[in-house]
Amino acid sequence: MAVNADLDAKMMARALAEARLGRPSPNPNVGAVVALQDQILGVGHHERAGSDHAEIVALRAAADSAKGATLYVTLEPCNHQGRTAPCVDAIIKAGVARVVVGCRDPNPHVEGHGIERLQQSGVEVTLGVRKDEARALIEPWVKHVTTGLPYIIVKLAVSLDGRIATRTRASKWITGPEARAKVHELRAACDAVCVGVGTVVADDPLLTVRDVEGANPVRVVLDSKLRIAAGSKLVTTAPETPTIILTTAEAPEANERQLTAVGCEVIRCARSNEGRVDVQSAFRALAQRGIVTVLVEGGAELTGSMLAARMADELHVFIGPLLLGPRGRPGAVDWAGPDEPTDAPKIVDPKWELCGRDAYVHGVLAYPSR
Amino acid sequence: MAVNADLDAKMMARALAEARLGRPSPNPNVGAVVALQDQILGVGHHERAGSDHAEIVALRAAADSAKGATLYVTLEPCNHQGRTAPCVDAIIKAGVARVVVGCRDPNPHVEGHGIERLQQSGVEVTLGVRKDEARALIEPWVKHVTTGLPYIIVKLAVSLDGRIATRTRASKWITGPEARAKVHELRAACDAVCVGVGTVVADDPLLTVRDVEGANPVRVVLDSKLRIAAGSKLVTTAPETPTIILTTAEAPEANERQLTAVGCEVIRCARSNEGRVDVQSAFRALAQRGIVTVLVEGGAELTGSMLAARMADELHVFIGPLLLGPRGRPGAVDWAGPDEPTDAPKIVDPKWELCGRDAYVHGVLAYPSR
Repeated sequence: MAVNADLDAKMMARALAEARLGRPSPNPNVGAVVALQDQILGVGHHERAGSDHAEIVALRAAADSAKGATLYVTLEPCNHQGRTAPCVDAIIKAGVARVVVGCRDPNPHVEGHGIERLQQSGVEVTLGVRKDEARALIEPWVKHVTTGLPYIIVKLAVSLDGRIATRTRASKWITGPEARAKVHELRAACDAVCVGVGTVVADDPLLTVRDVEGANPVRVVLDSKLRIAAGSKLVTTAPETPTIILTTAEAPEANERQLTAVGCEVIRCARSNEGRVDVQSAFRALAQRGIVTVLVEGGAELTGSMLAARMADELHVFIGPLLLGPRGRPGAVDWAGPDEPTDAPKIVDPKWELCGRDAYVHGVLAYPSR
Repeated sequence: MAVNADLDAKMMARALAEARLGRPSPNPNVGAVVALQDQILGVGHHERAGSDHAEIVALRAAADSAKGATLYVTLEPCNHQGRTAPCVDAIIKAGVARVVVGCRDPNPHVEGHGIERLQQSGVEVTLGVRKDEARALIEPWVKHVTTGLPYIIVKLAVSLDGRIATRTRASKWITGPEARAKVHELRAACDAVCVGVGTVVADDPLLTVRDVEGANPVRVVLDSKLRIAAGSKLVTTAPETPTIILTTAEAPEANERQLTAVGCEVIRCARSNEGRVDVQSAFRALAQRGIVTVLVEGGAELTGSMLAARMADELHVFIGPLLLGPRGRPGAVDWAGPDEPTDAPKIVDPKWELCGRDAYVHGVLAYPSR
């Protein structure tokens, strides 16, 4: 079969766009297109955990026309029985002549790889079309399945001098409504949003998605002694929006009973040397509950712990054009920090955007090796 | 004479562009165009203190053709004898029919205004064409002549968490080469650049213009006890580049003698309650020496004093996409700060620019009234 690289790239772009329509967490986003030359016969995506895989949806749409056609799929088709039957069987059965794959399945729990199985059955396979995009799309899921930790996005809203509150701890508003809407978009794109109990005490946040359309993430509080107030917005709205309190063995049983009685989930995690909730243990517990992406929204202490532990994967910062500088109070991130600017965690390929009167920068964090 | 507003605006834009070519500090930038309808007969600008005024240069270029023509000038022509003869006399003598003025001369030391004098002599006058631009162009000079203080631009180069150094006080480099080139442009545009002695001790800067073409500003150090090292780059290069050390009565006479012997100028200013150089007194001393614009390049303490005293007119911040956060150390600005974000000094109309991998925001600061 003659291969047209431009056509392959175009069809894979369509499959990637299709993939982004799903919200299948804790599964990866996957999209598929069945095509004969430049004629699209069927498209599909993995909509949610438990629903049909993208390949199955696309093949079903193409029906008998799939015979002899090309299947474009963003991720290597599965070759194992999960909640659904192996996709490779369906592909072979449909009589597809060629499969174009975005990237390999890096899941260490998968026994056999689908690509080899397809090739053994006489299906032509092309691997690595739009590989970087295909891989970036599933990066959070890759981290989740390969490390047992969620993909962690740290968000800050700071003044030009890196402050998140004034000397009176006032923080409304450092950034404008456009930035706040973007934060709500970030929340809607994550499985969970997480804060330290200090932020709950100071700000009494709701941590829901309000300024944009989208589902609320699970709300998570790190609270080593279960200090969170029963009357806080997070606790009182727990019956409507899932709320997890991560704590330590130190926390009083009575507080736990009170919180669970009103609908919060309380999880006891390991304790850090400083007596706080150990962040590794805490985020591992979230991953075990199928939480793939977590947005960490502060405060300075939690963000500092995440950076010191090199656990933050992405950084998103909104910067308001003002100066707050309270002397003697920590800034946006409370940690020891590096010795040299060259050793600092930095955004590798920063994307700067205008956001009303504020700036917004985001990207993947790199931690220089020491 | 029929007035064409579009033509007036176009010609005034040309006069403004012409004005920007000069470096006449401590005089204002002024530009002029002599035109008949849309035909330009002569242009001119005030090049440097002591050289001919813009009107004179433009009229000379137009020669006899100025008779009956229109003169566009960014600032009201002078009506007093300074280092040069009054411009209004030259305008009347040239037989100009109409004068279009950008903005009024706000100089309180000028006895009579030029516009009235022109009108009394039968010259038609239009005032306020591109008034905001004409006024913005001379804002530093307006502040200088009306308050006896220089126009003060504060520059910061910070991490995303508002830090200017790591815990080891390393600060090379938080921002990239593009940002540093912009800082050198700022230096070249200012009459003086100013730092606290702490910055000299920590960084031993040269504070000259190197990455771009341009003249070096006068270098100024606030140093209450004359702690600056005789071997510092600023002191050893004082014979080539003027260097002023602002100090207090406290400072040892011997240190002053040593510094003046190697070419520094030492000025004793008032002392603040904290025993530092009083910033009002210090900047007034600079204004008295004909310094109209000062770029304040840190450190945190000096910047904090400038903000607490509400003395900074413009803020320019370069932001590198990294996190430095040393716990327990001041950030970019060391001051008490406001109670509420709404009370914070903020850039009114922030201009955000990309600068390599960094962002650059600048604009005029507003201090909300308390």
